[in-house]
Amino acid sequence: MNNPNNETQGFVLNQTMLRIRDPRISLDFYQQVLGMTLYQRVDFSEMSFSLYFLGYPSNHPDQALPTDPAERSRFTFQQSALMELTHNWGTESDDTFAGYHDGNADPRGFGHIGITVPDVDAACERFEQLGVEFVKRPNDGSMKGLAFIKDPDGYWIEILNADAITALIGDHGALSH
Amino acid sequence: MNNPNNETQGFVLNQTMLRIRDPRISLDFYQQVLGMTLYQRVDFSEMSFSLYFLGYPSNHPDQALPTDPAERSRFTFQQSALMELTHNWGTESDDTFAGYHDGNADPRGFGHIGITVPDVDAACERFEQLGVEFVKRPNDGSMKGLAFIKDPDGYWIEILNADAITALIGDHGALSH
Repeated sequence: MNNPNNETQGFVLNQTMLRIRDPRISLDFYQQVLGMTLYQRVDFSEMSFSLYFLGYPSNHPDQALPTDPAERSRFTFQQSALMELTHNWGTESDDTFAGYHDGNADPRGFGHIGITVPDVDAACERFEQLGVEFVKRPNDGSMKGLAFIKDPDGYWIEILNADAITALIGDHGALSH
Repeated sequence: MNNPNNETQGFVLNQTMLRIRDPRISLDFYQQVLGMTLYQRVDFSEMSFSLYFLGYPSNHPDQALPTDPAERSRFTFQQSALMELTHNWGTESDDTFAGYHDGNADPRGFGHIGITVPDVDAACERFEQLGVEFVKRPNDGSMKGLAFIKDPDGYWIEILNADAITALIGDHGALSH
C-alpha cells in the first residue's frame, strides 16, 4: 500500500521532539551512550530555549554532514529519523522543577522511541556498565530478547533487534490492515 | 562529532510509539492524509492490543518492501523513521475513554513529530481541504512558514520545509554544542 497520491511525495519523517531538563546530561547520553551525532543546535535566547537535533549519520550512508551552517541546517531538516531535544532554559538548575512526563503513566500518550541494534544482549550489557536505568531487561517478562531503558528524563527507549523481534512476533504479524 | 566508538555501530532509530484510540481513523489519517505506508501490523489477541508500523518507503529509495511475512518483519524493524501506533482494543468504542495526552499541556514531555515537506503552504492548503485540525497555520505567530497540525488523537505534527526553517533560524543556528 504505497502513497495514495502525488500530493505527499517528498514527505520525510524528520523529527521526534522531547523536552529535556538538562542538555549537558542528555547530550552526553544521546551521544556517548546511544552513539548519536549532534546535527544542529539552535538557540532562541529571546525565548530562552534551545533545540538540539541528533541522529545516526550511518542511517544515511551516502551523505556527509556539511560544515557550512546554512547547508548544515538545510541538510538536517531534510533528514529522516532525528531526535529534537528541547531545553527550556533554567530547568537544569531549578530544584522545584518536577521533571517531564514520560507518557507511560496517566495521563498516557507517547510511549517510547525504539532503537534497532545488532545485538540486544551486548548493547544492554554495555548500557548496564554505563549505569543506564532499565525498565525491562532482555530476559524480563514474556517478551524475551527486547529491552526498555530510560533516558535521563525518564523517557522509555526500546532496544530491539530485527531478527529477534521477528521471531517473537511469529504468526502475530500481518502485512496489512 | 561522530559516533564515539564502535559499540553503537549499526544502531538505527527505528520507531516512535504513540497510543491511538481508533486504528480505523488513525490509519486513514497517517496513510491518506500524511501519505505513509503501513509496513507491518501485529496483533496480540491474548493481550488485547495491536501495533501498526508506518513510514515513508521513499525515505529508503533503494529498498523494496518484501511480501514474505518474516522478511517483511525483518525489513520493518531494520528501517529508520517509522511510527508505531499502539491500539489497546476497546478504546474506539468506549464512550468513557478520556483520550490520550498530547504532552503539550501539563504534565508536559513529548512535544511532537515533524514532517519535512517540499512546500509548507501547499501541504497545509491540502490539509485544510481534508479537514485537518491546525494548532498553528503557516502565517500564525512569529515563526512564519512552519505549521503544526493535530493527528486524530490530538498529537502535534510540525510541518516544515528545510529551506524555510533554515531562513527562519538565521544566525540562531550553531553546528555543535
